[in-house]
This record gives sequence, structure tokens and C-alpha cells, in this order.
Amino acid sequence: MSRIYERVALIGLGLIASSMAHAMRRAGVAGEITGFARSAETRDVAREIGLCDRVCDSAAETVSGADLVVLCVPVGAMGAVAAEIAPALKPGATLSDVGSVKRAVIDAVAPHLPEGVHFVPAHPLAGTEHSGPRSGFAELFDNRWCLIVPQEGSDRAAVARLEGFWQALGAHTDEMDADHHDLVLAVTSHAPHLIAYTMVGVADDLRRVTDSEVIKYSAAGFRDFTRIAASDPTMWRDVFLNNKEATLEILGRFTEELFALQRAIRIGDGDHLHAYFTRTRAIRRSIIEAGQDTDAPDFGRARQG
Amino acid sequence: MSRIYERVALIGLGLIASSMAHAMRRAGVAGEITGFARSAETRDVAREIGLCDRVCDSAAETVSGADLVVLCVPVGAMGAVAAEIAPALKPGATLSDVGSVKRAVIDAVAPHLPEGVHFVPAHPLAGTEHSGPRSGFAELFDNRWCLIVPQEGSDRAAVARLEGFWQALGAHTDEMDADHHDLVLAVTSHAPHLIAYTMVGVADDLRRVTDSEVIKYSAAGFRDFTRIAASDPTMWRDVFLNNKEATLEILGRFTEELFALQRAIRIGDGDHLHAYFTRTRAIRRSIIEAGQDTDAPDFGRARQG
Repeated sequence: MSRIYERVALIGLGLIASSMAHAMRRAGVAGEITGFARSAETRDVAREIGLCDRVCDSAAETVSGADLVVLCVPVGAMGAVAAEIAPALKPGATLSDVGSVKRAVIDAVAPHLPEGVHFVPAHPLAGTEHSGPRSGFAELFDNRWCLIVPQEGSDRAAVARLEGFWQALGAHTDEMDADHHDLVLAVTSHAPHLIAYTMVGVADDLRRVTDSEVIKYSAAGFRDFTRIAASDPTMWRDVFLNNKEATLEILGRFTEELFALQRAIRIGDGDHLHAYFTRTRAIRRSIIEAGQDTDAPDFGRARQG
Repeated sequence: MSRIYERVALIGLGLIASSMAHAMRRAGVAGEITGFARSAETRDVAREIGLCDRVCDSAAETVSGADLVVLCVPVGAMGAVAAEIAPALKPGATLSDVGSVKRAVIDAVAPHLPEGVHFVPAHPLAGTEHSGPRSGFAELFDNRWCLIVPQEGSDRAAVARLEGFWQALGAHTDEMDADHHDLVLAVTSHAPHLIAYTMVGVADDLRRVTDSEVIKYSAAGFRDFTRIAASDPTMWRDVFLNNKEATLEILGRFTEELFALQRAIRIGDGDHLHAYFTRTRAIRRSIIEAGQDTDAPDFGRARQG
């Protein structure tokens, strides 16, 4: 494949940025990859494993001369990083990000944008429960969605180029409005994560009561929750603080429905429970039909291979 | 391996029973396997695929002469089945079950127990989201726990024999008190399942709003929830109705903690969120150290191989 950007700068060198570096090399789409992380330790690791062609000691130096700059820092840090790098951005460059929330990132980054720089926010729907520069791998984005959120007046050529870039990294791309993105992600990702965090926290309280048996006998449902709840604390803190309205709206609906089910259990209304569980089973089928998962049985062991 | 029981009768021919049949054959621990399911269609499928040596048309015929009888029906059906088969049980036989709840099953089954039959309840902690006689496979119990719940005055030889049987099927065994079992399972399995069902139900409501995007862009967290929420509706209805107190207790703690986290989001208390998420991350580590899962990254694709 041929180069799409002559120079790509990655700000933040965690799971997403390091996977992008590997995927860019696999696809041969970047001439040079520069990188920066706030922590000296992370920069040292990145140098040690040769993650980028050049790891710089300042964000400004990293973006200097770059055709594409991707902010891969927690959502809450995007504004400060944008302010820092703005003066060093090359005219005609594209500035993008990989944040899990889009409205708050746009509000934080847009005011710092210099004339002549194309701002094209994006969000690759991919991740694992691991973090840091060593956690990346080239296949992370394969067959995953990357949602592109063009701004009013976005340069179409810059948008199309970024979409081609993500496709070269293995992803499918789609365009979406920022507020709509934040609502869809609140349902599919943000609320489920908070719920998993909560359930694991409850189990931890009980672990003291049950003498580690919660860990020893952790069944499939709970094991899945612990994996979700092992995700990066800083990243997720920022997601919830920056997608507050949509997340709280979904959690409100969730507790309403949970109370209805709890009541059905309390009064012994088996028909209500059975009908509800039959309905949710159909949703699983829709996801399989949509090609987002397969029907192969998973019982907590697929990942033990 | 040598025979442990001359004749084993399976009542109910779903995922667990069909997996037991395959695992028994793999291990060579049963002389003859008989089976019964209430639905004629299920019996026909079982005959077609040769699941048992003999599929009978009545529960009583199935258990006649059996050394081990295993009730593999939903928890709510255990009492009625026990009443039906009791007169046909062979003196000296062991009666067991695979229910996810133990106190309610014991209360329902024990009154029907004839003199000279050893009742040894059990619960293999294994499953998938699939059900029916075609869903079983021999490896389902490999390296999983099977909890044995001996009754006061249980014959030790009968208990040891059943433990050896489950070990031959691939499982580790442990003994536990019924009430304690029900509490541990409420935390590790029952509450997480209800929560997953609820979140998927909420997403289904919103699906109509978001024009199928919830399905299309379902991210890892949500996909895991849909898999859990695709489990058998009848089985789970009975679990919740029969482990009511422990499940409601855990759900009560869960909603308390969820409200505290929702409040932290609403007032912007990032420190509270970060500390909570850091604590839950440590629990994941305990589970990995306990050998109940591995550290390999899973991002919703392991099962797509």
C-alpha cells in the first residue's frame, strides 16, 4: 500500500496509539511516525521497543512538520494538549483524535485550532482491557468501526484522506454527528462499563465475607464483568465526566428497568421475567446477523488458548 | 478409565445433560446412559443424534435400574420430576442434580426421596449461551468447578463416588453448604446475569430511537452483555425465582453503589471514580492469579476465529 501521510504524530502512547503505530507499519501508510507521551517512563519504553521512528521530548516538537496529528490522550487532557501544540501545527495538516466522547473533545479542542488546520475528530471502536505502549498490536482495528465526526465546514478532501487512513489500518469507517455518537456510545459502551465496574466493586465488598470464594468460583458472567472493569481508570473517569448527560440518561433508564425486574422477582412474576429474557435473546441474534459477533459458544475459555 | 456407574439416567436433555453424555463417553465412566426430556421434539433430536444409549418416553422408565440419576431440568421443575421418578428409583441409587440454586432444589426434592436412595445435590459451574440437546460438547466441564452439596447424613461413599464421576468428566470438585452456595452464586452469576439482561433490554428500547446503530456499533462491553443475556429464559426465570433473597440482597447493594457512582458523575467527582476503577482493576488481577482466566487480551474477537 502507498503512503497516505508523509509524517504522522501520535500524542499519547497507550494502547490505541501503539496499535496505530503497528498498524501503520503493517500498511505502509506513513513515511515517518513521531510520538510523545507525558511520562518520561512511557517515552523510554516506546524508545526501547522502537514503537515510533522518533520519540520526542515535547508535544510541540512531535507535531512539527506532521501531516496528521492524532491526539491519543484521555478525553479530559485533549484541550490542554491542543493548546500546547496549536502554534506548532503545520498549515494544511489534519488534527484528529481517538477519544471515546466527541462533543466534549470538540468543545475543548476547537477553540485552539489555528487557521488552515483541518480538524477531523474520530473514534475507533476498539480496545482491550490492557494499556500502555507495550499493549498495542497491529490487528486491533481489523474489521472494527472507526466513526468519523466531520465538523461544519470540514474540508472534504481532508475527511476522505483520514477515512482512507483508517481503512488502511483495517477499520470500516462511517460518519456521524457528535451528539448522536455520544448517545450511541453511552448505550453500547459507557453505561455497560460503569455497570461492570459497579458489579465488580460489590463483589469485592463481599469477597471479604465469602473468603475469596467469589474469586475462586467466578462464573462466566462475572468474569466478563471483571475484564471490562479492568480497563484504564483515567480513561474511563474522563469518559464519564465528559459524557455526563447521555451516560446519566441511560443509567436512569437502566435503574428503572432493573427495579421493574427486581419487583418481578420479589412478587414472583415469572411471566414478566420470561418475556423479558426472551426479548433480550432476540437482540443477541440481531448482533450476530449484523456480523458484530459470531454464534460460536463462548464459555470463558476462548481466551485461555 | 473404568466405569463409575453401571447405568446413568439423565432427566432433561439440554446443554448440561448433553455435555454430560458426551463427557461420560469420552471418559468411559458409564455402562449405559438413558435419557428423557419432557418435549417429544427434544427426545426425537436426542435419538437422531444418538445422544444416549436409550431415550425413554417416561421419566420413570428412564431411571429404572439406574445407579445415578441426574436431574438436568430448570430449577422450578425439580420437585415435580422428583415426585414422578421417586417410586421408580433403585434402592442404593444416587440422585443428583445440576441446578444453579441449591436450597430451593433441596427443599423441593428431599420430601420425595425414598428410603435407601442417596441424595447428593451438585452444581457444575459451566455453561454457554446455547441450549438444547445439540448444544452439548464433551469439553464443557474441563477445568471448571463442580460444587457438591452433601446433605446432613449423606453417605460418604456415595458423595465420594459422585465427586470422582465429576472429576472424570473433567471438573474440579469442592463441597459447600447450600445457603453459602446460593450467596456466592448470587454474586458471581445470578446478579450479573440480571444486570446484563437489563442493560440489553434498555438498549433494545433505544434501538428504535437510534435506528439500529446500537446493534451496528455494539462495542466490546455491550457485546459481552448480549451474550450473557442470550441465555435460556426458562432456566434463568427459575434461578431468580428460587434464589430470590440472595439475588435481591446483592442487587440492593449493587444499586446503592451504582447510585454513588452516578452521583460522582453528576457532581464531577473524578477522584471518587478513579479510586473506584483502580480498586476493581485489582480484582481482575486476583482472578487471573487464581487461574480462573488468563491475561491474554480479549476484544470481542477471540470467539470469531
